[in-house]
Amino acid sequence: MSESLLQQARLAYQPKLPSLLQEFSSLQAIEGEPSSSFGDGVKELFPLTFGQPEVTFSQSEQEREALRVGVVLSGGQAPGGHNVISGLFDALKKNSADSLLIGFLNGPSGITDDQTVEITEEFLAPFRNQGGFDIIGSGRTKIETPKQFEASLATVQRHDLDALVVIGGDDSNTNAALLAEYFKKQGCKTTVIGVPKTIDGDLKSDEIEISFGCDTACKTFSEIIGNILRDCRSAKKYYYFVKLMGRSASHIALECALQTHPNWTFIGEEVAEKGWTLKQLTDQLVDLIVKRSSAGKDFGVVLIPEGIIEFIPEFRKMIDELNSALAENSPEEAVNKLSDPSANCFNGLPELIQKQLLLDRDPHGNVQVSKIETERLFIETVRDELKKRSDYQGKFAAQPHFCGYEGRSCLPSNFDSDYCYALGHVAALLATCRLTGYMSCVGNLTAPVEEWTISGLPITSLMHTEIRHGKPKPVIAKALTELEGRPFEYFKEQRDAWAMDDDYVCPGPIQFFGPAEITDAPLITLSLERQSKTTCSAG
Amino acid sequence: MSESLLQQARLAYQPKLPSLLQEFSSLQAIEGEPSSSFGDGVKELFPLTFGQPEVTFSQSEQEREALRVGVVLSGGQAPGGHNVISGLFDALKKNSADSLLIGFLNGPSGITDDQTVEITEEFLAPFRNQGGFDIIGSGRTKIETPKQFEASLATVQRHDLDALVVIGGDDSNTNAALLAEYFKKQGCKTTVIGVPKTIDGDLKSDEIEISFGCDTACKTFSEIIGNILRDCRSAKKYYYFVKLMGRSASHIALECALQTHPNWTFIGEEVAEKGWTLKQLTDQLVDLIVKRSSAGKDFGVVLIPEGIIEFIPEFRKMIDELNSALAENSPEEAVNKLSDPSANCFNGLPELIQKQLLLDRDPHGNVQVSKIETERLFIETVRDELKKRSDYQGKFAAQPHFCGYEGRSCLPSNFDSDYCYALGHVAALLATCRLTGYMSCVGNLTAPVEEWTISGLPITSLMHTEIRHGKPKPVIAKALTELEGRPFEYFKEQRDAWAMDDDYVCPGPIQFFGPAEITDAPLITLSLERQSKTTCSAG
Repeated sequence: MSESLLQQARLAYQPKLPSLLQEFSSLQAIEGEPSSSFGDGVKELFPLTFGQPEVTFSQSEQEREALRVGVVLSGGQAPGGHNVISGLFDALKKNSADSLLIGFLNGPSGITDDQTVEITEEFLAPFRNQGGFDIIGSGRTKIETPKQFEASLATVQRHDLDALVVIGGDDSNTNAALLAEYFKKQGCKTTVIGVPKTIDGDLKSDEIEISFGCDTACKTFSEIIGNILRDCRSAKKYYYFVKLMGRSASHIALECALQTHPNWTFIGEEVAEKGWTLKQLTDQLVDLIVKRSSAGKDFGVVLIPEGIIEFIPEFRKMIDELNSALAENSPEEAVNKLSDPSANCFNGLPELIQKQLLLDRDPHGNVQVSKIETERLFIETVRDELKKRSDYQGKFAAQPHFCGYEGRSCLPSNFDSDYCYALGHVAALLATCRLTGYMSCVGNLTAPVEEWTISGLPITSLMHTEIRHGKPKPVIAKALTELEGRPFEYFKEQRDAWAMDDDYVCPGPIQFFGPAEITDAPLITLSLERQSKTTCSAG
Repeated sequence: MSESLLQQARLAYQPKLPSLLQEFSSLQAIEGEPSSSFGDGVKELFPLTFGQPEVTFSQSEQEREALRVGVVLSGGQAPGGHNVISGLFDALKKNSADSLLIGFLNGPSGITDDQTVEITEEFLAPFRNQGGFDIIGSGRTKIETPKQFEASLATVQRHDLDALVVIGGDDSNTNAALLAEYFKKQGCKTTVIGVPKTIDGDLKSDEIEISFGCDTACKTFSEIIGNILRDCRSAKKYYYFVKLMGRSASHIALECALQTHPNWTFIGEEVAEKGWTLKQLTDQLVDLIVKRSSAGKDFGVVLIPEGIIEFIPEFRKMIDELNSALAENSPEEAVNKLSDPSANCFNGLPELIQKQLLLDRDPHGNVQVSKIETERLFIETVRDELKKRSDYQGKFAAQPHFCGYEGRSCLPSNFDSDYCYALGHVAALLATCRLTGYMSCVGNLTAPVEEWTISGLPITSLMHTEIRHGKPKPVIAKALTELEGRPFEYFKEQRDAWAMDDDYVCPGPIQFFGPAEITDAPLITLSLERQSKTTCSAG
């Protein structure tokens, strides 16, 4: 494997640890109050693991044993995954040199199919502080059927595992909780521990301040957006329509907006709350473009969260209808079965988008919302609408751009390197304390690393239930952008000025050397959230 | 104007200077041998400025006067433009505090229309070591007509300029040489000096080792490509087709390939030499995909230089015919007028590409080759061809990506910051020595900055003539990738291994702090070229 000089320098990076974790081998769990859940019906589904207390840790002399632990990466890549594994590995070895860590290959199917590799220091070394999930691969298989649960049980018993660590997003952590409950019910000693991963930032609660990878992804996208903004202001000839990866929630778009100050940023949650239609969103952009043009500016930058499409009511309805119709019909027939409003919505779309809706479907046959090129959709709808504006004399030239895959496997920032290394340590600690159905938690993240807090959070406390196919299913609610939250409020205060003033900011590339205020800065949204919480609890 | 912390840190960066330039105020020109030109017919077009000697500089005590200088940015953005201006400004002030620098606004039209701003320390300060051309803007106007030449003369005389510095690519430097000749002929004292700019790297000669901006752009694109490669190897589910900005030449694609080791990289110049057709290029990719699939790999990364399309003979011919036909016909009629081979070529293209060919035309009505989405074209042709391969059982899922505008206005690397600052100094030196029709030259660029050399190169020495509309026109030949050169040779030695082995490298984001071997590394192609030249001349 070849490495760049920077990769080599990063291999040598020693992640910083919270003070408490520096004395890893003498930490013991302290139980708090019993936990509840986010919504009803969860207790019934988790009779054995529901209601466990949140745990914190403190020093206490204590013999440590060698542990046998398995780890799996689940879902899309997020910078820092390798550091969760190295933190877990190093912590287990602090317990005992005889501890064993095995990796399940290519996601949860590695558990059901018992595909493993032993993770040794030598095996791990080239992956420390590096991006990607390629150390053991990842995958999107869900452990759902009774057969899959049985196979998983057989695997963890075959390996005599003390614990299984699941690194994943909301779905994967739900899966972890279900496995914890199931193993316990079967009298299996293997505990199950989750680690909050996703660049999208939608796995979040009072205790989980941010999921790992979000920091690096937002900074990488902001670098690119900052560069485009500067180019835009220099050339003065294009409108850039930049779509941002991030699933439903607009966390990434909001953070990138705060980092770079583009002229316009859609926030999906606001679109939903206001019930704005595609036509209204187009009109907002067209109004902006006309206004800027009369100020002599035929250029600008628009940020579009990939999830926006789901938040436009007419679109949501049309996609739901399409999904149902496509299950039993050819694409052509499916279109004919749409209701009038949905047919109107569909027929009003550019051909390219219509094709994407009908052809790019996921393995379940559903429309892949994330593949819809909304950046091109808005360019077309804006271009059409501008032609109708008699007050507009400007020149509209547009460039689409998509920020996505380049943000999922980059070299993790210092923040994500340190955070993930700590998350791995806490996962090891939860395993040591024989706790099951817990998520690894590290908090106080806007303070210096030494002051970060550590705890274990019962996964069920994040859950509610939804009825699917007539049965209650446990779900960790995706955290959406809070329209009452300080980050969005702050954005609202600024955005009118940004629309016209071109107060563009270049965050520049992530730095790994130099002043800590540059290398270790937390995200702006995280800082604003933490500030407002501190202020609230102080007040 | 808001700035990120990194932007603020970069504002404080003091660019390093070659040793000789550290004694700026005592340098004097030394003339070498008279120069010649790259091709015939140039002397006739430049009777007054042809044959001037290359100049170098050495110490000599000498009174310095205040100079009045104008500067203009011409063409597309390239990181470092602001540092050329700050180098020029600082050098002129070293001559005399009474020196004056004015900027022409928004490109060469700023000269003909006399749109200016005085560049003072205060005005310049926020732009030091920053990306973009927004300090005075840029533009693509060419000074061509007698009226434009007269207007330019009037402007430089009105401002009583001693010199005019033109920062631009091959066309802009040709323009600079024409202005130099014209001003001299008119008895105007204003000298004209060029500075070699373009991220594309195609303005290059024995003396011009690299144009400025190419370093930063290649590193920024390589960061993105490295991230995508790592994601690709982690998820193992996509083929990424990455188009790279860079006009005709494949310099950027070659450098990015050497930096990151993708599975496949087209080099336009090789395509032209071999006379490969679109079908053959598609077959090459399909062969690779089939071979990788039988090795269990349904993923990979392909780099495509944006200029490749011009190098495919059938395509070149079809585009030439289209351009002629479109001049006098509607798009539909134009297609009907194509010759049989060109019609075949056109009709074989995906609809999206056909549309782009017909609709996205430049102000002269020509097809905009750079706007053709070749990354999508190849995805379509590969998908179609794969269906015909009975030996292929794999799954082909592809993602298009375009690296372009985000590389033109980024924070310049240390290399470009230092290089441009030195180029600005040399431009000031050429102005001080009353030399006209010269390009600012800084060499020995893979050595430490202190050892960089400085010189002035007669622009006419880079020229040949081409017959356009029956008349000889002076042209600076675009430097293409040399298929006999060491960089391409080295690439050829590696590429078979890269095709199958996934020896992906993540160069990571540009670093501004830390070890000099990381912050100040020159491009790999530049190092290989310099090494082979040193070896040759030593041998």
